Amino acid sequence: MNEPAETTENLEVEQPDSWEQLEQIVAAKDSEAARSYLKELPPGEDARIMAQLTETEQQEFIALLNDEDAAHLMESLPELQAGQLLSALPPEKAALIFDEMHSDEQVDLLDQLTEAQSEAIIEQMDPEEAENVRFLAQYDSQSAGGLMITELLSFEESQTVDDVVTELRQNAEEYATYNVQYIYVINAEEQLVGVLRLRDLLMAPPGRRLNKMMIANPTSVPDSTSLQDLQHFFDSHHLFGLPVIDADQKLVGVVRREDVEQAGEEQAGRTFLRFAGIMGGEELRSLPLKIRSARRLSWLSINIVLNIVAASIIAMYEETLETVIALAVFLPIVSDMSGCSGNQSIAVSTRELVLGVIRPRDWFHVFRKELGLGLVNGITLGILLGGVAYLWKGNPYLGLVIGGALGLNTLMAVCLGALIPLILKGFKLDPALASGPILTTLTDMCGFFLVLSFAQALLPWLT
Amino acid sequence: MNEPAETTENLEVEQPDSWEQLEQIVAAKDSEAARSYLKELPPGEDARIMAQLTETEQQEFIALLNDEDAAHLMESLPELQAGQLLSALPPEKAALIFDEMHSDEQVDLLDQLTEAQSEAIIEQMDPEEAENVRFLAQYDSQSAGGLMITELLSFEESQTVDDVVTELRQNAEEYATYNVQYIYVINAEEQLVGVLRLRDLLMAPPGRRLNKMMIANPTSVPDSTSLQDLQHFFDSHHLFGLPVIDADQKLVGVVRREDVEQAGEEQAGRTFLRFAGIMGGEELRSLPLKIRSARRLSWLSINIVLNIVAASIIAMYEETLETVIALAVFLPIVSDMSGCSGNQSIAVSTRELVLGVIRPRDWFHVFRKELGLGLVNGITLGILLGGVAYLWKGNPYLGLVIGGALGLNTLMAVCLGALIPLILKGFKLDPALASGPILTTLTDMCGFFLVLSFAQALLPWLT
Repeated sequence: MNEPAETTENLEVEQPDSWEQLEQIVAAKDSEAARSYLKELPPGEDARIMAQLTETEQQEFIALLNDEDAAHLMESLPELQAGQLLSALPPEKAALIFDEMHSDEQVDLLDQLTEAQSEAIIEQMDPEEAENVRFLAQYDSQSAGGLMITELLSFEESQTVDDVVTELRQNAEEYATYNVQYIYVINAEEQLVGVLRLRDLLMAPPGRRLNKMMIANPTSVPDSTSLQDLQHFFDSHHLFGLPVIDADQKLVGVVRREDVEQAGEEQAGRTFLRFAGIMGGEELRSLPLKIRSARRLSWLSINIVLNIVAASIIAMYEETLETVIALAVFLPIVSDMSGCSGNQSIAVSTRELVLGVIRPRDWFHVFRKELGLGLVNGITLGILLGGVAYLWKGNPYLGLVIGGALGLNTLMAVCLGALIPLILKGFKLDPALASGPILTTLTDMCGFFLVLSFAQALLPWLT
Repeated sequence: MNEPAETTENLEVEQPDSWEQLEQIVAAKDSEAARSYLKELPPGEDARIMAQLTETEQQEFIALLNDEDAAHLMESLPELQAGQLLSALPPEKAALIFDEMHSDEQVDLLDQLTEAQSEAIIEQMDPEEAENVRFLAQYDSQSAGGLMITELLSFEESQTVDDVVTELRQNAEEYATYNVQYIYVINAEEQLVGVLRLRDLLMAPPGRRLNKMMIANPTSVPDSTSLQDLQHFFDSHHLFGLPVIDADQKLVGVVRREDVEQAGEEQAGRTFLRFAGIMGGEELRSLPLKIRSARRLSWLSINIVLNIVAASIIAMYEETLETVIALAVFLPIVSDMSGCSGNQSIAVSTRELVLGVIRPRDWFHVFRKELGLGLVNGITLGILLGGVAYLWKGNPYLGLVIGGALGLNTLMAVCLGALIPLILKGFKLDPALASGPILTTLTDMCGFFLVLSFAQALLPWLT
């Protein structure tokens, strides 16, 4: 139980690739076969299969499905992939598929499209659904308003248990897709005044009024509540859904635990990508080359400038370097190792920020903790690399220069790496994207400077 | 709505630090104050406040709380932090707190302790709960068995709606913490035969037998199902919980959507940390320095060896380097930029593996996609850096050497970065941890070799 086995993919039990079969179905325009093909796919395979088809094939396949199956397929694909597929469909077809989705999924997918594309689809939608989507689209996608669903059960406080049961029975089919756990009780102004669990209805006499049995003044959140606050809320409360109210206290939706968890997971994925220099959100290889290349280059071109700035330090010490050419071997090692040490600190700070264990104003606490670690790791790594340098050239002063430079630079990198994410976060900038380049530029410059200036000072003993 | 505002933390509305107030409460041993203090903390603040207290203060604070509040607090802390706190408590106290937690949380926390510590706590627990924990602890924490809860409602198929409602009413208090959505129907051998939604009970005549109204042969998963398969399942099914069966088809638990989402989020966090070279799981700064330092050094010491191996290429070309000392300025730039390009590819492949869009055997599809991108980015970056080299020294051949080396090395880094995670995953190794060091060693070596061998070939025109 102790070691999480995260590479559980079992290669042995995999079926032979079935997308050739899919190509035949598409070519034969066989709706029935398309449907049963989709049903028999192991979970998760649909995303992979779709990613391997050309855009035309994807569209032809979608055209073979009924709207409900197409909606189901789109919901199980990564949002970016579903968005690409959607943007290639005629707006009328897209709108029909949309009508089969939950409100939050509609909005998430429209987020992937251009303004014109999403407007074209909304116009073709069922008018009531369209109004709802427009209403939801006004919210920041990472706020309670953007994460909530509007499919909820609300009743006026003067209604009775029997009213609710009758209503549920009459619309059983519609509510079947609602995943109801709570019933919300509102007053005549549509303001939230109470909540009832479904199981409470089971145990109540039919004639009882809702306001006589509801939990009054239930917890609710304003529609502007941030994802992070929602995450903290669900961490510390065993609830499935949280009613969302607008500025007038009106009940506007329900944000569910699962949506908050999923948004958190997606955010962690994007943080990971930004940390490695992928800008503009998710990158899937099904995106056009032009977009992928441009996004990656935009980050690389900033880095190349920073790299040139850092390396210009070396150019200032060309003479020293010419005298002790062995230094050129150690320059990349010192800068790279310090970068690694600093990145570890960045990762821990970024993670602690996400977990809510630290905040920007805790910088001194973080600095103190990191100073000790920087000293221990700096001394250890300095002795290691200094020893190698000494043994290689048989010159203890070379060992001193290299070891001393790496030790000091590690200490600096560890402390800077820990603080940079806090500083960026304090200025409301994105720690994941900018911390790495800022750190490595500083550690490169400082590393080159330390090696070369120490060498210049000890030059007589190095030659 | 388009730009997710992920830095939503609002510095203005924050209260002044309240942990000094907490220190006073702890010093005064004021139980009542401790309780109301905890209640009034904004969501998420508890983790941060606890992280700032010394270990002794944390224990004194926990001692002031009743078991239920203490359990509640521990559940809202990051697992690592809660585990540390727990390991410092006397086993009797820890066991009392444990009895207030859900079964899956108990097991997650025991995972953080040594064998001896967790055995000491289990021995002090309520015997029934202890047996349950021992049963759950046998499972891999990232499988359906490790993620499931055992608090579920199951009834025999011959029972009636009235039996269920009576049972629910009689044990309303116990079930209040269960978050019930489904009722599971089993046969005399405890095998799962059907499922009922709570709302179905609302609409049924009291005397009806469960097997006359249940959904027969419900979807269930074996207890060994992997987290990844569970994620795919919940992606494509609108269910809240999924019954888990053992090898004898017996119903052993329920894995809930929220637990799967949360496990996915935690896994994404750990992947992020491993990617930056933090081994051994979560690192919080509240861990002892010795452990933090040793974990980071274990990864850094592998890296320093790899760095020395790569830099030894430079040592082989000392003469060339002495002749054209300007090359020493560009060596770190070429190796660093290629590392950045390769890391972008690693991140995209790792992410696509997590999303299930690619699998190891799709390597050729990935390679083809990345080849084009490597060419475009290689040529662009080569021209950029080659241009800088040419302008700096006024020597077009220097530009050719540097630009050509960076271009080729970028192409190689992009392709290798895309494939390495697939290869590692194919061999059931961890792509996040090992991809980076393998890539940078290869790109460093290759980058140094390309710059210096090109320079040697063009040496007459470079001096």
